[in-house]
Amino acid sequence: MRGMSNRCWILAARPDTNITDDTLKLEERDVPEPGEGEVLVRNTYLSLDPTNRGWMNDEAGYLPPLALGDIMRGITAGKVVKSNAEGFAEGDLVTGLGGFSDYGVGPAQGWTKLPPGVDETMALGVLGHIGLTAYFGLLEVGQPKEGETVLVSAAAGATGSLVAQIAKVKGCRVVGIAGGPEKCKFLTEELGLDAAVDYKNADNITKAIAEACPDGVDVFFDNVGGPILDAALANLAMRGRVVLCGAISQYNKKETKGPDNYLALLVRRGKMEGFIVLDYMSRAAEAAGAMLPWIQAGKLALKLDIVDGLESAAPALNRLFTGANKGKLLVKIV
Amino acid sequence: MRGMSNRCWILAARPDTNITDDTLKLEERDVPEPGEGEVLVRNTYLSLDPTNRGWMNDEAGYLPPLALGDIMRGITAGKVVKSNAEGFAEGDLVTGLGGFSDYGVGPAQGWTKLPPGVDETMALGVLGHIGLTAYFGLLEVGQPKEGETVLVSAAAGATGSLVAQIAKVKGCRVVGIAGGPEKCKFLTEELGLDAAVDYKNADNITKAIAEACPDGVDVFFDNVGGPILDAALANLAMRGRVVLCGAISQYNKKETKGPDNYLALLVRRGKMEGFIVLDYMSRAAEAAGAMLPWIQAGKLALKLDIVDGLESAAPALNRLFTGANKGKLLVKIV
Repeated sequence: MRGMSNRCWILAARPDTNITDDTLKLEERDVPEPGEGEVLVRNTYLSLDPTNRGWMNDEAGYLPPLALGDIMRGITAGKVVKSNAEGFAEGDLVTGLGGFSDYGVGPAQGWTKLPPGVDETMALGVLGHIGLTAYFGLLEVGQPKEGETVLVSAAAGATGSLVAQIAKVKGCRVVGIAGGPEKCKFLTEELGLDAAVDYKNADNITKAIAEACPDGVDVFFDNVGGPILDAALANLAMRGRVVLCGAISQYNKKETKGPDNYLALLVRRGKMEGFIVLDYMSRAAEAAGAMLPWIQAGKLALKLDIVDGLESAAPALNRLFTGANKGKLLVKIV
Repeated sequence: MRGMSNRCWILAARPDTNITDDTLKLEERDVPEPGEGEVLVRNTYLSLDPTNRGWMNDEAGYLPPLALGDIMRGITAGKVVKSNAEGFAEGDLVTGLGGFSDYGVGPAQGWTKLPPGVDETMALGVLGHIGLTAYFGLLEVGQPKEGETVLVSAAAGATGSLVAQIAKVKGCRVVGIAGGPEKCKFLTEELGLDAAVDYKNADNITKAIAEACPDGVDVFFDNVGGPILDAALANLAMRGRVVLCGAISQYNKKETKGPDNYLALLVRRGKMEGFIVLDYMSRAAEAAGAMLPWIQAGKLALKLDIVDGLESAAPALNRLFTGANKGKLLVKIV
């Protein structure tokens, strides 16, 4: 559509390891014209997520790879500008894979309308893919029981902080792993966790987890992989469960390093299971119905870390990998 | 008991990597006197199992570590010589942890009487810990469905060959991994598997598995770990299950190497689960009841590789790790 500006972050080069200034390039492109059955959306917020890194690779993960020159894939919320699809009207608030760009276009089934009372930041946070990841990953995959010990890595991050709070609601002893005293203080003082492990300042992370989890780890919700996963496996309780949500410590590496302590799963009759939140999208209402009362009761909250302007999106992405972000990282586009 | 000879293999040194001539030493010891509630057994057959290697280490696995100077732990079958326990009488055939020795002694609950018609080699094979491992590991942990692809490592070995045959009974497409053309021929021609992968002669084990499992691997029953586990993970089907039974490729190493492809579990929503057959011992009758008709119908058989004389036990152990054994390795003591 002429006369409108559509800034787009283009995948210009696949990063070998870290995302660099050459990875994504900001370009002006025409605003796309929605086809039959499609919706054009003015993106207002863009979610920055660790999984974005995997989408830059030249191999299929749980979604097909992008081509070089494609608009970078990203989850957005925004407002319908033009609809050629039944069920969507101009002005509707929606969320979907709108991309690292001012406008997103695509078939109706790729967009979800926000329920009344849910704004864009909630839709990209506690009631969006982050909240569903925490809710279904912990409860369906991890199956924590009251009184069990739940250990969460990247516990001060978006997903981890929700997992930890949901585990507290369920009556578990909850221990969070985070980097630095400030984040650990946030875990114990603001989120009310039973203990926190500062992996950046622990002499021995395996020992530190053992001290914080004297009965072993019944459920480990892992967002990071690497040495922390090994340390958690070393502390696995009998019939412990490892929920594989992510491996942010490995995403920037050429070769993933697997957990050398995986035989703990054998000796302690444990299991390690992966999941992808996409599989649970059809059950979003169920999760929202469960989480809303917890939010209203002040038991569940998601700290937001909002960066201003689409031009800040690519530079801000690396904050996920350095651990510099404080809560759910979002870009406010307009 | 005086006047009787009791040769015992003593754990003389913990192996750093491979079992050597210094690891186990043959000694004469007194035949023990059974205490109150205990049974003295003349071991007639000793089972040699990969898990024996783990029992030599100075760390608790699923059983406490042995002390140096202890009789090497081992699973035996034999005949009751003297009983101070209710329910056991002289002449009863039993199986239990009789040790690498002429005689075994211990409390009644450590011994199981063989049902009528079951001899010692069956009790240490298809109807013993090997059969139960295959039966419960595959069916309870792996949960294969008719038409699914089941991949088995060390498929020409004792446990693997039973797993593969049980999977065939259950209507699965079954692919076995083994070393060398002779073993692979055994898998396809004698066991009737759908395909065999010769890991010693494959240029690329991942590709070879992909060719043998065009729809991916729904259940991988792993006895070996290492590069074969990684190759299987690379071929995991959606919601695939990895049954961790053992890791014979790793037992002789100082440090276990984990599966670098573990994130396949995340992308393909898979799980990897460990188990120990000890947990299923109370359900032995159930497994025997299911397997006996398969044995009678010629659908399930266990090849035996019998070594003569207790003095051959320690030297024969390494055949498990070189792949030289052909079927279930047993030592005939008398």
